[in-house]
Amino acid sequence: MRVVVALGGNALLRRGEVPSAAQQRDNVRTAARVLAPVAREHELIISHGNGPQVGLLALQAASYDDAEPYPLDVLGAQTEGMIGYLIEQELGNELAYEQPFATILTMVEVDPEDPAFDNPTKPIGPVYPEADARELAAKHGWTIASEDSGWRRVVPSPRPKHIFEARPIQWLVDQGVVVICTGGGGIPTMYRDGRLVGAEVVVDKDLASALLAKQLGADLLVMATDVDGVYSHWGTHDAERLGTVKPADLADLDLAAGSMRPKVEAACAFVEATQGTAVIGSLETIDQMVNGAAGTRVVAAEDPSDVRLPGL
Amino acid sequence: MRVVVALGGNALLRRGEVPSAAQQRDNVRTAARVLAPVAREHELIISHGNGPQVGLLALQAASYDDAEPYPLDVLGAQTEGMIGYLIEQELGNELAYEQPFATILTMVEVDPEDPAFDNPTKPIGPVYPEADARELAAKHGWTIASEDSGWRRVVPSPRPKHIFEARPIQWLVDQGVVVICTGGGGIPTMYRDGRLVGAEVVVDKDLASALLAKQLGADLLVMATDVDGVYSHWGTHDAERLGTVKPADLADLDLAAGSMRPKVEAACAFVEATQGTAVIGSLETIDQMVNGAAGTRVVAAEDPSDVRLPGL
Repeated sequence: MRVVVALGGNALLRRGEVPSAAQQRDNVRTAARVLAPVAREHELIISHGNGPQVGLLALQAASYDDAEPYPLDVLGAQTEGMIGYLIEQELGNELAYEQPFATILTMVEVDPEDPAFDNPTKPIGPVYPEADARELAAKHGWTIASEDSGWRRVVPSPRPKHIFEARPIQWLVDQGVVVICTGGGGIPTMYRDGRLVGAEVVVDKDLASALLAKQLGADLLVMATDVDGVYSHWGTHDAERLGTVKPADLADLDLAAGSMRPKVEAACAFVEATQGTAVIGSLETIDQMVNGAAGTRVVAAEDPSDVRLPGL
Repeated sequence: MRVVVALGGNALLRRGEVPSAAQQRDNVRTAARVLAPVAREHELIISHGNGPQVGLLALQAASYDDAEPYPLDVLGAQTEGMIGYLIEQELGNELAYEQPFATILTMVEVDPEDPAFDNPTKPIGPVYPEADARELAAKHGWTIASEDSGWRRVVPSPRPKHIFEARPIQWLVDQGVVVICTGGGGIPTMYRDGRLVGAEVVVDKDLASALLAKQLGADLLVMATDVDGVYSHWGTHDAERLGTVKPADLADLDLAAGSMRPKVEAACAFVEATQGTAVIGSLETIDQMVNGAAGTRVVAAEDPSDVRLPGL
């Protein structure tokens, strides 16, 4: 089976942890232990988040001098390097020496006409008091928005259109290589005057992973996070974890804001575009999710005309 | 022809330039213009330096808080991401849309018993006044050394033994992919208690590129820098650029300290190990170096027993 696993942010750093290299390496080691059995049995492609890492690099750069911080494409590329390395090395330590690996920098194309550019919604970096946020916004041309605990920079999150390195990734997977790619939703790029340039946006990691899985012809898309599945009536006494569902079953679900909505959207988009299967569940159970023993599974509708969500 | 081009530090940042993303992108664009004709005619693998970029990331991290700065393997991985992305995108803009690219994170293995560990010589990061350097050395356990303008941290620079991702790189090159890899001499790693871990060292970029060229069976190794070749009697009125030479001709050359010595060593090691050809010359003439019209060419001795330098 060809399996794409999208590692959530908790694979690298859990809420409240110090973002040291050693801490992140420890966390990656935990993920590597549940990825190893999947790599032994299946074709495995791994993607991952990068939110806290991009935020930290931007903060460090801002502390050092008054130079313009690196743009989000360059920061994304740096984090793909760092996180990809840690995953490759730690998973390599769990597998036979002969197992080949490749971490591939991944550029994802977005459409400069995407309506998301008119409505920045994706918060990045730290939470500021309002006055500081307004000052930074004026200085750097940021859009800012308030949330519960203060103000943050927000950037557009357009839909991913195309992953440029999909062919090389496919060729390596065909050779039995474990490939790590599309970190942080991919390095955001777009065409401007016929040239490919960086885009000051963040592409949703789960949607980009779904597109990757589609472009690679994957059978299974696993989204690993810090909850064990998708719940109906989340946050109430009637909360219930869903087992196996069809995309249409999820369309009317009242998903709390936060990270579950894009996962459900990505799962449904992948399943409807490919007739493959998507699973959402806990990082610690990745191997069981692959085997059908954990998580919420989204499977194709028997009647493919019964689709409700935007496609890939 | 299979060609490995090692881009010198001036491909990214020239002495005195501000290390902004825009400046580095502009410089990469210049390199991309001379790499494009090589990519159209030959199999092309590109490596690159990362010295100023690692120094800057370390400085930024140190400015932000008192946390231990990321180790050199992680910083190396970040710079492979950033620089690889800029090269891939800008060279991609010079070539046909159909040309596939892959930037592959590259781990290089060093020997923990390498004598270089007892004699750190490679300066990294900024120049400090002596008192500051001593304080930082005590705090972080650094070795420091004085040079003309002040004190710097120095780290070991062991020889590269093995490039882990050589097989995937080879498979991609066989498919016609332009591959960017082994940036900054590769992410330094070594085995400790049976596990691969990061090493707090810097591997010489040119030696690592020579090893890469050997592992890939390359025909030509091009080292692009800011001088147009290797000179005899460098720094005197008798200085003369060498045209085509054999490794033995270079063994007795009085090479000034600095960056030419490792290039000559890498060129000779590659030529003696493979009977291929190595060229050293100006970044601006990469296409001419490939065609034999520029740079100092190091070719194999007719009698292969006539070798003088340490092998790869």
